[in-house]
Amino acid sequence: MSEQSVAPVSPVPVPVPTPTPAFEPPYYAVVFASNRTDRDTDGYTHTAHRLSDLVRGIPGFLGEDSAHTPGGLAISVAYFRDLAGIEAWRRDPEHLAAKQRGRERWYEQYVIHIARVEHSHGFTRT
Amino acid sequence: MSEQSVAPVSPVPVPVPTPTPAFEPPYYAVVFASNRTDRDTDGYTHTAHRLSDLVRGIPGFLGEDSAHTPGGLAISVAYFRDLAGIEAWRRDPEHLAAKQRGRERWYEQYVIHIARVEHSHGFTRT
Repeated sequence: MSEQSVAPVSPVPVPVPTPTPAFEPPYYAVVFASNRTDRDTDGYTHTAHRLSDLVRGIPGFLGEDSAHTPGGLAISVAYFRDLAGIEAWRRDPEHLAAKQRGRERWYEQYVIHIARVEHSHGFTRT
Repeated sequence: MSEQSVAPVSPVPVPVPTPTPAFEPPYYAVVFASNRTDRDTDGYTHTAHRLSDLVRGIPGFLGEDSAHTPGGLAISVAYFRDLAGIEAWRRDPEHLAAKQRGRERWYEQYVIHIARVEHSHGFTRT
Protein backbone atom coordinates (compact mmCIF):
# COMPACT_ATOMS: atom_id res chain seq x y z
CA MET A 1 0.00 0.00 0.00
CA SER A 2 1.46 3.37 -0.99
CA GLU A 3 1.52 6.25 1.41
CA GLN A 4 -0.84 8.16 -0.84
CA SER A 5 -3.59 5.63 -0.25
CA VAL A 6 -3.63 6.23 3.51
CA ALA A 7 -6.44 8.63 4.34
CA PRO A 8 -5.58 11.40 6.78
CA VAL A 9 -6.85 10.74 10.27
CA SER A 10 -9.24 13.45 11.36
CA PRO A 11 -11.24 13.65 14.56
CA VAL A 12 -14.61 12.16 13.76
CA PRO A 13 -17.32 12.69 16.36
CA VAL A 14 -18.73 9.40 17.59
CA PRO A 15 -22.39 9.37 16.54
CA VAL A 16 -24.89 9.05 19.36
CA PRO A 17 -26.92 5.90 18.77
CA THR A 18 -30.55 6.52 17.90
CA PRO A 19 -33.40 4.56 19.45
CA THR A 20 -34.79 1.63 17.47
CA PRO A 21 -37.86 3.01 15.64
CA ALA A 22 -41.47 2.15 16.38
CA PHE A 23 -42.79 -0.72 14.24
CA GLU A 24 -46.33 -1.65 13.28
CA PRO A 25 -47.81 -3.63 16.22
CA PRO A 26 -47.97 -6.36 17.17
CA TYR A 27 -44.33 -7.21 17.74
CA TYR A 28 -42.34 -8.29 20.78
CA ALA A 29 -39.95 -6.61 23.20
CA VAL A 30 -37.56 -8.53 25.44
CA VAL A 31 -36.53 -6.30 28.34
CA PHE A 32 -33.33 -7.37 30.13
CA ALA A 33 -32.55 -5.28 33.24
CA SER A 34 -29.40 -6.17 35.18
CA ASN A 35 -26.83 -5.35 37.80
CA ARG A 36 -23.42 -6.43 36.72
CA THR A 37 -20.61 -7.45 39.00
CA ASP A 38 -17.32 -5.57 38.70
CA ARG A 39 -15.93 -8.55 36.84
CA ASP A 40 -15.86 -6.98 33.43
CA THR A 41 -12.90 -9.17 32.66
CA ASP A 42 -13.48 -12.83 31.77
CA GLY A 43 -14.52 -11.83 28.30
CA TYR A 44 -17.64 -9.83 29.12
CA THR A 45 -17.15 -7.14 26.49
CA HIS A 46 -16.12 -9.64 23.84
CA THR A 47 -19.14 -11.81 24.59
CA ALA A 48 -21.52 -8.84 24.56
CA HIS A 49 -20.29 -7.75 21.13
CA ARG A 50 -20.47 -11.30 19.81
CA LEU A 51 -24.08 -11.74 21.02
CA SER A 52 -25.00 -8.38 19.54
CA ASP A 53 -23.75 -9.59 16.15
CA LEU A 54 -25.39 -13.01 16.50
CA VAL A 55 -28.87 -11.75 17.35
CA ARG A 56 -28.94 -9.77 14.10
CA GLY A 57 -29.00 -13.09 12.26
CA ILE A 58 -32.17 -14.30 14.02
CA PRO A 59 -35.20 -14.25 11.66
CA GLY A 60 -37.62 -11.57 12.83
CA PHE A 61 -35.05 -9.59 14.82
CA LEU A 62 -35.99 -5.90 14.49
CA GLY A 63 -33.45 -4.05 16.60
CA GLU A 64 -32.01 -3.50 20.05
CA ASP A 65 -31.64 -0.55 22.45
CA SER A 66 -29.06 -0.60 25.24
CA ALA A 67 -28.13 1.77 28.05
CA HIS A 68 -25.91 1.40 31.11
CA THR A 69 -25.62 3.88 33.97
CA PRO A 70 -22.04 3.75 35.28
CA GLY A 71 -22.20 1.97 38.62
CA GLY A 72 -25.90 1.38 38.15
CA LEU A 73 -28.44 -0.55 36.11
CA ALA A 74 -27.98 -1.84 32.59
CA ILE A 75 -31.05 -2.22 30.39
CA SER A 76 -31.27 -3.73 26.96
CA VAL A 77 -34.45 -4.14 24.98
CA ALA A 78 -34.45 -6.42 21.93
CA TYR A 79 -37.37 -6.22 19.49
CA PHE A 80 -38.63 -9.19 17.48
CA ARG A 81 -41.46 -9.59 14.99
CA ASP A 82 -42.80 -12.70 16.72
CA LEU A 83 -42.30 -15.21 19.51
CA ALA A 84 -40.66 -17.65 17.08
CA GLY A 85 -37.68 -15.28 16.81
CA ILE A 86 -37.42 -14.98 20.58
CA GLU A 87 -37.57 -18.77 20.91
CA ALA A 88 -34.85 -19.23 18.26
CA TRP A 89 -32.66 -16.74 20.12
CA ARG A 90 -33.38 -18.39 23.45
CA ARG A 91 -32.18 -21.74 22.06
CA ASP A 92 -29.08 -20.43 20.29
CA PRO A 93 -26.12 -22.47 21.65
CA GLU A 94 -23.72 -19.51 21.93
CA HIS A 95 -26.42 -17.46 23.63
CA LEU A 96 -27.15 -20.29 26.09
CA ALA A 97 -23.44 -20.65 26.92
CA ALA A 98 -23.11 -16.89 27.42
CA LYS A 99 -26.11 -16.83 29.77
CA GLN A 100 -24.52 -19.58 31.83
CA ARG A 101 -21.26 -17.62 32.06
CA GLY A 102 -23.26 -14.51 32.89
CA ARG A 103 -24.91 -16.18 35.87
CA GLU A 104 -21.55 -17.54 37.04
CA ARG A 105 -19.46 -14.43 36.56
CA TRP A 106 -21.07 -11.18 35.45
CA TYR A 107 -24.52 -10.65 36.90
CA GLU A 108 -25.56 -10.03 40.47
CA GLN A 109 -29.19 -9.86 39.41
CA TYR A 110 -31.19 -9.74 36.26
CA VAL A 111 -34.86 -9.71 35.32
CA ILE A 112 -36.28 -10.55 31.89
CA HIS A 113 -39.73 -9.42 30.72
CA ILE A 114 -41.05 -10.79 27.41
CA ALA A 115 -43.84 -8.55 26.18
CA ARG A 116 -46.13 -8.12 23.18
CA VAL A 117 -46.05 -4.52 21.94
CA GLU A 118 -49.57 -3.22 21.38
CA HIS A 119 -48.91 0.49 20.79
CA SER A 120 -45.83 2.45 19.81
CA HIS A 121 -44.87 5.84 18.53
CA GLY A 122 -41.80 7.95 18.04
CA PHE A 123 -40.79 11.60 18.16
CA THR A 124 -37.95 13.24 16.24
CA ARG A 125 -37.05 16.89 16.77
CA THR A 126 -37.41 18.81 13.53
CA MET B 1 -28.42 22.61 68.02
CA SER B 2 -25.49 21.49 70.21
CA GLU B 3 -22.33 20.08 68.68
CA GLN B 4 -23.00 16.76 70.40
CA SER B 5 -26.18 16.30 68.33
CA VAL B 6 -24.30 16.34 65.02
CA ALA B 7 -23.74 12.78 63.87
CA PRO B 8 -20.27 12.00 62.54
CA VAL B 9 -20.13 11.86 58.76
CA SER B 10 -18.90 8.49 57.56
CA PRO B 11 -18.49 7.35 53.99
CA VAL B 12 -21.62 5.41 53.12
CA PRO B 13 -21.45 3.45 49.88
CA VAL B 14 -24.21 4.43 47.47
CA PRO B 15 -26.33 1.31 46.93
CA VAL B 16 -26.58 0.12 43.34
CA PRO B 17 -30.25 0.10 42.34
CA THR B 18 -31.68 -3.34 41.78
CA PRO B 19 -33.90 -4.20 38.83
CA THR B 20 -37.65 -4.14 39.37
CA PRO B 21 -38.63 -7.77 40.08
CA ALA B 22 -40.62 -10.03 37.78
CA PHE B 23 -44.37 -10.00 38.51
CA GLU B 24 -47.06 -12.55 37.74
CA PRO B 25 -48.15 -11.98 34.10
CA PRO B 26 -50.02 -10.39 32.57
CA TYR B 27 -48.86 -6.87 33.34
CA TYR B 28 -47.62 -4.00 31.17
CA ALA B 29 -44.26 -2.47 30.37
CA VAL B 30 -43.85 1.01 28.90
CA VAL B 31 -40.44 1.26 27.23
CA PHE B 32 -39.17 4.82 26.69
CA ALA B 33 -35.90 4.99 24.72
CA SER B 34 -34.47 8.46 24.06
CA ASN B 35 -31.62 10.64 22.95
CA ARG B 36 -31.44 13.74 25.05
CA THR B 37 -30.07 17.05 23.91
CA ASP B 38 -27.25 18.59 25.93
CA ARG B 39 -29.78 20.94 27.47
CA ASP B 40 -29.82 19.35 30.89
CA THR B 41 -30.58 22.77 32.28
CA ASP B 42 -34.12 24.11 31.98
CA GLY B 43 -35.20 21.96 34.88
CA TYR B 44 -34.64 18.54 33.34
CA THR B 45 -33.32 16.87 36.49
CA HIS B 46 -35.92 18.48 38.71
CA THR B 47 -38.70 17.41 36.33
CA ALA B 48 -37.37 13.86 36.07
CA HIS B 49 -37.34 13.49 39.85
CA ARG B 50 -40.79 15.00 40.16
CA LEU B 51 -42.24 12.62 37.54
CA SER B 52 -40.54 9.68 39.23
CA ASP B 53 -42.34 10.62 42.48
CA LEU B 54 -45.66 11.26 40.74
CA VAL B 55 -45.84 7.96 38.87
CA ARG B 56 -45.59 6.08 42.17
CA GLY B 57 -49.02 7.46 43.03
CA ILE B 58 -50.68 5.98 39.93
CA PRO B 59 -52.91 2.99 40.82
CA GLY B 60 -51.37 -0.18 39.43
CA PHE B 61 -47.85 1.24 39.13
CA LEU B 62 -45.45 -1.62 39.86
CA GLY B 63 -41.97 -0.14 39.42
CA GLU B 64 -39.52 1.50 37.05
CA ASP B 65 -36.03 0.71 35.72
CA SER B 66 -33.81 3.43 34.27
CA ALA B 67 -30.38 3.49 32.67
CA HIS B 68 -28.46 6.17 30.74
CA THR B 69 -25.22 5.65 28.88
CA PRO B 70 -23.20 8.89 29.13
CA GLY B 71 -23.36 10.48 25.70
CA GLY B 72 -25.67 7.73 24.50
CA LEU B 73 -29.15 6.32 24.86
CA ALA B 74 -31.38 6.62 27.90
CA ILE B 75 -33.93 3.86 28.51
CA SER B 76 -36.60 3.75 31.15
CA VAL B 77 -39.13 0.98 31.54
CA ALA B 78 -42.19 1.56 33.76
CA TYR B 79 -44.28 -1.43 34.80
CA PHE B 80 -48.05 -1.25 35.41
CA ARG B 81 -50.59 -3.85 36.40
CA ASP B 82 -53.00 -2.84 33.64
CA LEU B 83 -53.69 -0.42 30.79
CA ALA B 84 -55.90 1.71 33.06
CA GLY B 85 -52.79 2.73 35.02
CA ILE B 86 -50.93 3.61 31.84
CA GLU B 87 -53.89 5.66 30.65
CA ALA B 88 -54.12 7.49 34.00
CA TRP B 89 -50.41 8.28 33.77
CA ARG B 90 -50.71 9.38 30.14
CA ARG B 91 -53.43 11.87 31.11
CA ASP B 92 -51.73 13.24 34.24
CA PRO B 93 -51.51 17.05 33.75
CA GLU B 94 -47.97 17.40 35.13
CA HIS B 95 -46.84 14.49 32.99
CA LEU B 96 -48.45 16.02 29.89
CA ALA B 97 -46.76 19.37 30.56
CA ALA B 98 -43.40 17.67 31.10
CA LYS B 99 -43.73 15.75 27.83
CA GLN B 100 -44.40 19.00 26.00
CA ARG B 101 -41.31 20.61 27.56
CA GLY B 102 -39.36 17.45 26.71
CA ARG B 103 -40.23 17.74 23.03
CA GLU B 104 -39.39 21.43 23.02
CA ARG B 105 -36.16 21.29 25.01
CA TRP B 106 -34.69 17.96 26.05
CA TYR B 107 -35.21 15.22 23.49
CA GLU B 108 -33.75 14.84 20.03
CA GLN B 109 -35.64 11.60 19.57
CA TYR B 110 -37.67 9.20 21.59
CA VAL B 111 -39.63 6.04 20.95
CA ILE B 112 -42.32 4.59 23.23
CA HIS B 113 -43.41 0.95 23.13
CA ILE B 114 -46.41 -0.10 25.25
CA ALA B 115 -46.33 -3.85 25.72
CA ARG B 116 -48.20 -6.59 27.57
CA VAL B 117 -45.79 -8.80 29.51
CA GLU B 118 -46.51 -12.47 28.88
CA HIS B 119 -43.48 -14.10 30.51
CA SER B 120 -40.92 -12.93 33.04
CA HIS B 121 -38.29 -14.33 35.33
CA GLY B 122 -35.44 -13.14 37.47
CA PHE B 123 -32.02 -14.33 38.60
CA THR B 124 -30.22 -13.37 41.79
CA ARG B 125 -26.68 -14.56 42.52
CA THR B 126 -26.62 -16.60 45.70
